[in-house]
Amino acid sequence: MSITAAEAYAPATVANLGVGFDILGLAVAEPGDTIRAEWSDLPGVTVADITGDGGKLPRESAKNTACVAAQSALKLAGETRGVRLTIHKGLPAASGLGSSAASAVAGAVAVNALMGEPLSRGDLLPPALDGEAVASGYHPDNVAPCLFGGITLAVGLTADRVYNLPVPANMHLALVTPHVEVATALARAALPAEISLKQMVSQTAGVAELIHAIYTGDLEHLAAAMERDRVIEPAREHLMPFMRNVRATAKRAGALGMVISGAGPTLMALCDSQSTAEAVASAMKAVYEMEGIGATAQASMVAPDGARVVRIERG
Amino acid sequence: MSITAAEAYAPATVANLGVGFDILGLAVAEPGDTIRAEWSDLPGVTVADITGDGGKLPRESAKNTACVAAQSALKLAGETRGVRLTIHKGLPAASGLGSSAASAVAGAVAVNALMGEPLSRGDLLPPALDGEAVASGYHPDNVAPCLFGGITLAVGLTADRVYNLPVPANMHLALVTPHVEVATALARAALPAEISLKQMVSQTAGVAELIHAIYTGDLEHLAAAMERDRVIEPAREHLMPFMRNVRATAKRAGALGMVISGAGPTLMALCDSQSTAEAVASAMKAVYEMEGIGATAQASMVAPDGARVVRIERG
Repeated sequence: MSITAAEAYAPATVANLGVGFDILGLAVAEPGDTIRAEWSDLPGVTVADITGDGGKLPRESAKNTACVAAQSALKLAGETRGVRLTIHKGLPAASGLGSSAASAVAGAVAVNALMGEPLSRGDLLPPALDGEAVASGYHPDNVAPCLFGGITLAVGLTADRVYNLPVPANMHLALVTPHVEVATALARAALPAEISLKQMVSQTAGVAELIHAIYTGDLEHLAAAMERDRVIEPAREHLMPFMRNVRATAKRAGALGMVISGAGPTLMALCDSQSTAEAVASAMKAVYEMEGIGATAQASMVAPDGARVVRIERG
Repeated sequence: MSITAAEAYAPATVANLGVGFDILGLAVAEPGDTIRAEWSDLPGVTVADITGDGGKLPRESAKNTACVAAQSALKLAGETRGVRLTIHKGLPAASGLGSSAASAVAGAVAVNALMGEPLSRGDLLPPALDGEAVASGYHPDNVAPCLFGGITLAVGLTADRVYNLPVPANMHLALVTPHVEVATALARAALPAEISLKQMVSQTAGVAELIHAIYTGDLEHLAAAMERDRVIEPAREHLMPFMRNVRATAKRAGALGMVISGAGPTLMALCDSQSTAEAVASAMKAVYEMEGIGATAQASMVAPDGARVVRIERG
């Protein structure tokens, strides 16, 4: 029997880790997007349905990250049949949790499963990046951890330029997403075009320290290194409501450090236990609620695996 | 019996490692500077003699890196007696091998030994940096490996901000110093004041990759990451005679990569065996000699230890 449908799940990701702007990212177990791919008589990749997006995502294939990624994967495998996708968004758009990357990765992984996996996981990076590019340009910092899991250092656009770093023991995360949208394009536009050489040295020092702390598994050092960013966060801080207050509150509740997740508005606090991460998530959420802003909070960990095939149908 | 004289040896160091500008450095076993410290009836720290510098180094205490470092160490220990230093320079000035850092470190280590070691090795970093600052400002990238040995990541001016990184197995170096002077101040002045955000991301990516490669012990990757510098080397290349030719020659002879050592003109090639490092050192030297420039070449390795006390006299 041949495969008639395949479903893939792709998780939320946290890009940047502060000073690791555009190169570092990590996967969390959930939430995530689930995409079902089926063969279609229509040519190319079309959208059968999208749920969970509040009607906001483009149904037009050329503008839909999952469709573009799926089409790119089909092309790479030399597959000419048409495919239709049913997209279940578990991730809110423009939240800083890698929503567009998750859709792109789930689309690519789903069609690869539908084809019987002619492509390796690494082969799927460029197609997933093609999909992500529709939403926010060629940036592997979310796509890489979404596809490969764990903590990734992505320094290029192919799998041989992505490195999995060790995940420190007891690395717990508190993730809080206030219900305000921060468009990635806007968050990018806020960044300075030029920085001083001194700032560059400060950023390279912070990144070097962060990789060192990840390898030595020193969570306090890791948190301090993440927060050494003096270029990106200062430029974006005004887009994140009450961020200073949320950071101070997170630290009072036991967090070791806090950074903007991706382009925000989700904030990620690093903690050394599940109970602390839960307390920190609640405390951060409460700050927004005091200010009349709804927020979603969760305690989480780094997910060792990235996207996965969750269903195969044969007929 | 009390200590009447102490001698310390401080080795050559290679700062920057390409993309790790201003933060990374490593110690090599030799050459180095040796400084003898003795109690003196004169107040403060004075120069008894300097050998091996061709008369170029300042004899005036306030301008001499070893004297300033020694004075700073004495002050830190609350010592008010006078000291005189005899400085044997094994390192050429303005060669990119951390000559001023070696004198500063040897001065600090020697007086600490003379005092009976009231200060820890880590305590000696700020005094050594005070000495180095006389020559080229507060930069720990040479002083840190000179004092602590191995490969160091220095992100601040105190010992708790310096981290020793693991030294990959089979890490061999070819060091070639053409007999031309490149003043550190000139090499600093050649650097751009501002860089683009895109360049910053490229540099942070290169540094992250370099630390990752050091931890994984992948020499090829380490060499490629070192060479990912697109900011410092392009701005300094014109100060290094025949650098492109030397690099191409080094690689033909088996080097995995090559970078400027510190501010130059010494060039450091990374190799994976002693025999290759020897062949590469000879080949690089030959390029200069073909052009009528004398050069000193050596095959070396990372020295696990930094400066050391080599003699104690009691009376």
